[in-house]
Amino acid sequence: MSEKYVYSFSEGYGKSKNLLGGKGVGLAEMAHLKIPIPPGFTITTEICTAFYKNKGRYPQGLKEQVYKALQKMEREAGMKFGDPKNPLLCSARSGARKSMPGMMETVLNIGLTSKTIPGMIEKTKNPRFVWDSYRRLIQMYSDVVMEKAEGIEPAEGMGVRQQLERELAAMKQRRRVTNDVDLTEHDLAELTKIYKTRVMQVIGRPFPDDPYEQLWGAISAVFKSWNGKRAISYRRIEGIPDDWGTAVNVQAMVFGNMGENSATGVAFTRNPATGENKFYGEWLPNAQGEDVVAGIRTPNPINEEMRQIDDTEGHPSLEKAMPKAYALLTKIRQRLENHFKDMQDLEFTIQDGRVWMLQTRTGKRNGPAAVRMAVEMFKSKMISASEAVMRVTSSQIDELLHPMVDPEAEMKGEFLAKGLPASPGGAVGQVVFTAADAVGWAKAGKKVILVREETNPEDVEGMRAAQGILTARGGMTSHAALVARGWGRCCIVGAGTLRIDTHQKTMMVDGKIVREGEIITLNGTKGRVYKGALAMISGTEDDKNFAAFMKLCDSVRRLKIRTNADTPKDAARAIQFGAEGIGLFRTEHMFYGENSEKPLFHLRKMILSDTVEERRAALNDLFPFVKNDIKKTMEVMAGRPVTIRLLDPPLHEFVPGNPEERQHLAESLRISMDKLNSRAENLHEANPMMGHRGVRLGITYPEVSEMQIRAILEGAAELLKEGKKVLPEIMIPVVCDVAEFKNQATLVKKILPEVCAKYGLKKIPHLVGTMIEIPRAALLAGRIAEEAEFFSYGTNDLTQMTYGFSRDDVGAFVPEYVEKRIIPVDPFQVLDQDGVGQLIEFGIERGRKTRPGLKVGICGEHGGEPSSVMFCHRVGMDYVSCSPYRVPIARLAAAQAVIEQKTAAKKKHK
Amino acid sequence: MSEKYVYSFSEGYGKSKNLLGGKGVGLAEMAHLKIPIPPGFTITTEICTAFYKNKGRYPQGLKEQVYKALQKMEREAGMKFGDPKNPLLCSARSGARKSMPGMMETVLNIGLTSKTIPGMIEKTKNPRFVWDSYRRLIQMYSDVVMEKAEGIEPAEGMGVRQQLERELAAMKQRRRVTNDVDLTEHDLAELTKIYKTRVMQVIGRPFPDDPYEQLWGAISAVFKSWNGKRAISYRRIEGIPDDWGTAVNVQAMVFGNMGENSATGVAFTRNPATGENKFYGEWLPNAQGEDVVAGIRTPNPINEEMRQIDDTEGHPSLEKAMPKAYALLTKIRQRLENHFKDMQDLEFTIQDGRVWMLQTRTGKRNGPAAVRMAVEMFKSKMISASEAVMRVTSSQIDELLHPMVDPEAEMKGEFLAKGLPASPGGAVGQVVFTAADAVGWAKAGKKVILVREETNPEDVEGMRAAQGILTARGGMTSHAALVARGWGRCCIVGAGTLRIDTHQKTMMVDGKIVREGEIITLNGTKGRVYKGALAMISGTEDDKNFAAFMKLCDSVRRLKIRTNADTPKDAARAIQFGAEGIGLFRTEHMFYGENSEKPLFHLRKMILSDTVEERRAALNDLFPFVKNDIKKTMEVMAGRPVTIRLLDPPLHEFVPGNPEERQHLAESLRISMDKLNSRAENLHEANPMMGHRGVRLGITYPEVSEMQIRAILEGAAELLKEGKKVLPEIMIPVVCDVAEFKNQATLVKKILPEVCAKYGLKKIPHLVGTMIEIPRAALLAGRIAEEAEFFSYGTNDLTQMTYGFSRDDVGAFVPEYVEKRIIPVDPFQVLDQDGVGQLIEFGIERGRKTRPGLKVGICGEHGGEPSSVMFCHRVGMDYVSCSPYRVPIARLAAAQAVIEQKTAAKKKHK
Repeated sequence: MSEKYVYSFSEGYGKSKNLLGGKGVGLAEMAHLKIPIPPGFTITTEICTAFYKNKGRYPQGLKEQVYKALQKMEREAGMKFGDPKNPLLCSARSGARKSMPGMMETVLNIGLTSKTIPGMIEKTKNPRFVWDSYRRLIQMYSDVVMEKAEGIEPAEGMGVRQQLERELAAMKQRRRVTNDVDLTEHDLAELTKIYKTRVMQVIGRPFPDDPYEQLWGAISAVFKSWNGKRAISYRRIEGIPDDWGTAVNVQAMVFGNMGENSATGVAFTRNPATGENKFYGEWLPNAQGEDVVAGIRTPNPINEEMRQIDDTEGHPSLEKAMPKAYALLTKIRQRLENHFKDMQDLEFTIQDGRVWMLQTRTGKRNGPAAVRMAVEMFKSKMISASEAVMRVTSSQIDELLHPMVDPEAEMKGEFLAKGLPASPGGAVGQVVFTAADAVGWAKAGKKVILVREETNPEDVEGMRAAQGILTARGGMTSHAALVARGWGRCCIVGAGTLRIDTHQKTMMVDGKIVREGEIITLNGTKGRVYKGALAMISGTEDDKNFAAFMKLCDSVRRLKIRTNADTPKDAARAIQFGAEGIGLFRTEHMFYGENSEKPLFHLRKMILSDTVEERRAALNDLFPFVKNDIKKTMEVMAGRPVTIRLLDPPLHEFVPGNPEERQHLAESLRISMDKLNSRAENLHEANPMMGHRGVRLGITYPEVSEMQIRAILEGAAELLKEGKKVLPEIMIPVVCDVAEFKNQATLVKKILPEVCAKYGLKKIPHLVGTMIEIPRAALLAGRIAEEAEFFSYGTNDLTQMTYGFSRDDVGAFVPEYVEKRIIPVDPFQVLDQDGVGQLIEFGIERGRKTRPGLKVGICGEHGGEPSSVMFCHRVGMDYVSCSPYRVPIARLAAAQAVIEQKTAAKKKHK
Repeated sequence: MSEKYVYSFSEGYGKSKNLLGGKGVGLAEMAHLKIPIPPGFTITTEICTAFYKNKGRYPQGLKEQVYKALQKMEREAGMKFGDPKNPLLCSARSGARKSMPGMMETVLNIGLTSKTIPGMIEKTKNPRFVWDSYRRLIQMYSDVVMEKAEGIEPAEGMGVRQQLERELAAMKQRRRVTNDVDLTEHDLAELTKIYKTRVMQVIGRPFPDDPYEQLWGAISAVFKSWNGKRAISYRRIEGIPDDWGTAVNVQAMVFGNMGENSATGVAFTRNPATGENKFYGEWLPNAQGEDVVAGIRTPNPINEEMRQIDDTEGHPSLEKAMPKAYALLTKIRQRLENHFKDMQDLEFTIQDGRVWMLQTRTGKRNGPAAVRMAVEMFKSKMISASEAVMRVTSSQIDELLHPMVDPEAEMKGEFLAKGLPASPGGAVGQVVFTAADAVGWAKAGKKVILVREETNPEDVEGMRAAQGILTARGGMTSHAALVARGWGRCCIVGAGTLRIDTHQKTMMVDGKIVREGEIITLNGTKGRVYKGALAMISGTEDDKNFAAFMKLCDSVRRLKIRTNADTPKDAARAIQFGAEGIGLFRTEHMFYGENSEKPLFHLRKMILSDTVEERRAALNDLFPFVKNDIKKTMEVMAGRPVTIRLLDPPLHEFVPGNPEERQHLAESLRISMDKLNSRAENLHEANPMMGHRGVRLGITYPEVSEMQIRAILEGAAELLKEGKKVLPEIMIPVVCDVAEFKNQATLVKKILPEVCAKYGLKKIPHLVGTMIEIPRAALLAGRIAEEAEFFSYGTNDLTQMTYGFSRDDVGAFVPEYVEKRIIPVDPFQVLDQDGVGQLIEFGIERGRKTRPGLKVGICGEHGGEPSSVMFCHRVGMDYVSCSPYRVPIARLAAAQAVIEQKTAAKKKHK
């Protein structure tokens, strides 16, 4: 820890976010750029860490540094903190390395006391404003500092916040007015007295009348809010480490609520929902910043262009209402974007016509916007190709791959309401009205749309659980819209025609009633809500930015991307997504789902055979189906490599379990139920995952492997005869010893010349390789590579065996493991680089030692998970294979892996 | 391959068995010691290997070398091969590195032709002997060389051997005589003519009349018999590699069948069944060697001492019948034993009163004999402690641990018959009459006694499958007795009163009839057969040699030997066998078997609880049982370490499956069947081996771990208060990450001070460690060792996960894998050093890097398997733990491991 704990904004230029937090850095950079900001200082994140380490005590010397910085701030502002004549008020705000919008606390108007109020009134000539500010201070401070930060958890409705809100409501009732603004300065002055009495009653301590006590209370409260419930829950979701800590920014207050020539607003340098290079924002006249962000009042568009998008109740744009201020803002916009070379999220306040910037930070954006901005900034040479690739996260790509409402279906849909298109995409789900319900229903496997009057930070977990979010109030930049956009969650806000009744769990709109559990569809791209479930389409079709971005990724990556596909249809889709081959074609797929009846019948007959002869006869009947299936898929792949795995599951998976189906099967096979039952019993296994499956079947029933190998080679031969290209890769699953592999490879060597002769071909291009999915195979990969021409890591099974976690049974304990932090994440979702990763590295190293240039890939679920793909790149695999919809994500991750590796190498070099 | 293919016996001194085979080395050593042997030479094993490599062709130069050696032999014998006047006859015998008694072919009397017969008659003055020898030559040669070696497989009873036997029988019938010896020289001369005609008819080629053709035919036949069916099957059982090959020994014939002053015999320098230091052997007057070995005539004891053991029909001993020859033999016995420093197995022939040694080799012996000889030779300083330890194999120790017939039960047993005590120990089983039945019944899980008129080499597999072997004919040194003794299989031979009917599958004795499937008991130590099953006792009790040998092992070994024991009774037995601690105490044992009803009821109640409170109540009821069980076992172990594993199996194992038991359980628990069924369904797992078990239970139900930890510590505390010593080691099973371990270790830290306080103790000695049984735990052992105080390898599960072989399901393919040589052996029986071994080594290396001196052991089944124990020694484990009966085997293996490591180090040093 360094000796310097406090940085004035003008001192912070070039310091890191790790030290000053995002907000602190933004202010320091703006100070450096001579952009108008209210003066202030940042207390570093190191103090937060020390604060927690030392059980709530600050390090020696902090006080002195804060006071020194405060004096500088006083000089710069030309006012004095606590001065009765010319009092300086200030705010205390959090600011972590990574933005956690609304998750931590803020205190405004610090410094208003019985001594400074008169001076303030004198100075502003606006007693109503001063009393209102004081009222807000008491309300906020007593809640945040005196109650929450002290860990007091009052019963529902009994907290100081609710108590004061009741007093406010009572006052309005007494004065027979509806809105806060209708209360006079006297009402407000009286209200502050009532507030202070109430605070004393509820908390047991008086509201502090000393400005320094207020300041330190506020600073501590911000630090404490780092470990508040909301913040912790948000960090879990976002994967932010607990030990980062937050900085605290103390800044001179400026007031957007000083009258009609004052205003406050938030803006993005580009459109965060589409990426369009247009100034985008909202403002409220005569308001404080929190009013916009909290989403209580629906704000106005910042300019005329934006009004066309948002068209909310015809409020005037800032461009029209305050053209000079707007013009300055557009200049600031440009300067900031040029400086940061990324889209910025701005907060500003206009006090008496003068523009003050309160914040700039890298703006959150959704997937389509991220992609568009990356592509456009790259094209305009603002950023390099590598920077562009690093600008988009895989979950943002995932978003693009999410479905959108089919426009044709939308034409016929039953329209319910219109709101602001806060986060695009489509979502279908059952309506729920509380975050808790959203979490509960989603856990039960239901898809839900969370409908709220207004979204607030307490709802994050519910929003996370929902398919989409719909609110009646709030603007495009309200917290919830921001969060939803960050996650790519479809979201519509400010759908003002909705009448939501949380108690009855209904919403009314245009006389229609929608109850909890009913299905609705959101079109987040257009801000439209429909009754029932509308059809969806893929979101990337005809998206030129998406295509351009993917090309950029392709130009950077080394890893090839294949897909796991079992049908010509899947294969075709995967090619559209950019797949360069099939990494896993499961022959058993044809026995499930559509058109599986006939092949399944023959398979079952084979399984229930008593003799090799019977089995061969059944296999002969099955053969044409298998050949056709493989041939058609290879044809679609048009010469790209197609890895075909020989039969993998244990045979009992194909024998029906229920008595009626068995009866039916017995009849069609003309065997007795007894025989069928006894055969099924023979096949039963205690632990089928580690039982008679994969190559083990191929060894005990070589005729089954032979049939498949012949089907592959004949399928290939027929395509070659038709003048087409093929590259089948025959893959032996579940191998744990080279002898198993050899046994099966011998069958290929036997059948190949037969097929060549049958079709009059000299050769059929092909490879024979193996899955590495059993720990022993990885350990003995050196020997296996003597025979195998390629390795494909089956990380699902490898994870299973390495952990001893049955994929089908981990539900009983893995969620609890993750919750209790025994393991950071489900290893079936994210590859365990520490453990399973070791086996992968052994296998590659040893395999390539025996057979330099051995082709190595991965075909487990992890092949489409970004951090796992990056691992695959680092350990030198040739390709990853994933489901068709994950192909673009894998392309991005593969490109990012190259860049990260280079960056790491550079760092090491330094 | 060297240039020298042929060694005269006088040239072979100091050459290895690998080159000359056991027989060749024995002859060469005897030549060196000037012991009388007929001259001859050895064709090396390298020729056998080359012969198979070059598809039956010999390397250039072999012929010349053979002829040169033959000339030397002629000079030494003073006769000439093929010489009409003074013809030399010779034999061709196999001789592999390791003795394979009766498994390969021999041809005698080579060199008798129409040209040499007259000279031979002239020389011996014994025309009957010469014609009989010629008859034997044709019979043996046509069968071995002309038919078998050519791979001709005639239908049952249609082979040349049977055809000639019929002719012999027909001749006897024509001459109205019963025995071969009653045929005259003329009969025999005529028979040889008939034989030659028959051979021509059956084989289609004439019997060769050229001595060199005979010689080369015989040599090739011996080489070919290396790959005969019997030899291959024997090699599988004994684990002899196929590529060792056999040597061929060509030796001048001497004749034990030249009249009453001639004889043949076999002998052991010590008693191979007991180890007693007494000359032991059998002989037959006027006979050829094969007559003794084939077990067709029951031979005479070699001396008077042996007659007391064997007392067979009062035949004279060699000591009495030919005292001069016997005196020479006893001298030779002493010279050979002093030279080889081990018990020798001898073959000799006396021709006209002159003693010729035909063979000396290390004698096969059973377990008790091996132990006694090792101890006595060590005591007499003939061999060192290390040599003594290496003289006994673990299967020989195993034999000693096998039961013997309880003498008290024998007093009351129903006596059936007496035979020769060919191989000691006791055996109980169902009678079968063919080797095939023995194999078939044993595969079906039955224990069988193989009963045969005479044992012959075709029976090896049946003998292997049987618990014991009983024959009506044959002597103590017949092939089968030898083989049975080598395996430590209980065996009684020459029980002459038995009348066996193989067709009816019965045996009659003293008017009693025993049918196939009836149970009999063999006392192989005394040679007695009883009807029914007699009680057995342990074979090592009061065996001083065994105790002395084990002490010898203990003086050499480094590894500690612990036992897997779950009850005070098992623990006590293991201490008797030399256990130095418990390596695995399974807490769940108390829920199975005897006295399990009450604890099982409480456990089930716990499992079926809905709430933590209910669960805690059930656990409280269970607590005293668990504590008592652990305490009693620790008390027996008297301060030796006791590793107690926390609950390991998945909970559903304890819920009864059948509806009646469930109904009963539901009633006793006063819950509904529905609830019970639904809870059971919840607990069901697809792959329970990789499911919710071990530490995973401990983490989701910490109260279950707490109860067990408290039981262990309170049990220990109570013993401490009683002034006893304790050393519990708490073991957490199924760990795959250090966080799991930490979670449970925290419970120990919480409970320990509570228990100390309760009993007023300052401390309770204990360790907390983990099983390493999940591959990931081995890979991340470095981190786990930060917390764990010891590792115990659970190699059953580790093998399971490393191979992906479910222990419960491998029956479907592992036997076939072993048969098809995909894997050499079931990895659950013999530790897979190649694969699983790597994980073990990683784990130890990484664990000790973090925590130097980390205590490491093994508690899987492999802890009692010798090659696995030796591996455990090499990789630096501290102890192995195995079932009580395997403890002595582990003690031996641990000692042998030290010696082998030293030997290997020496070799490396050279």
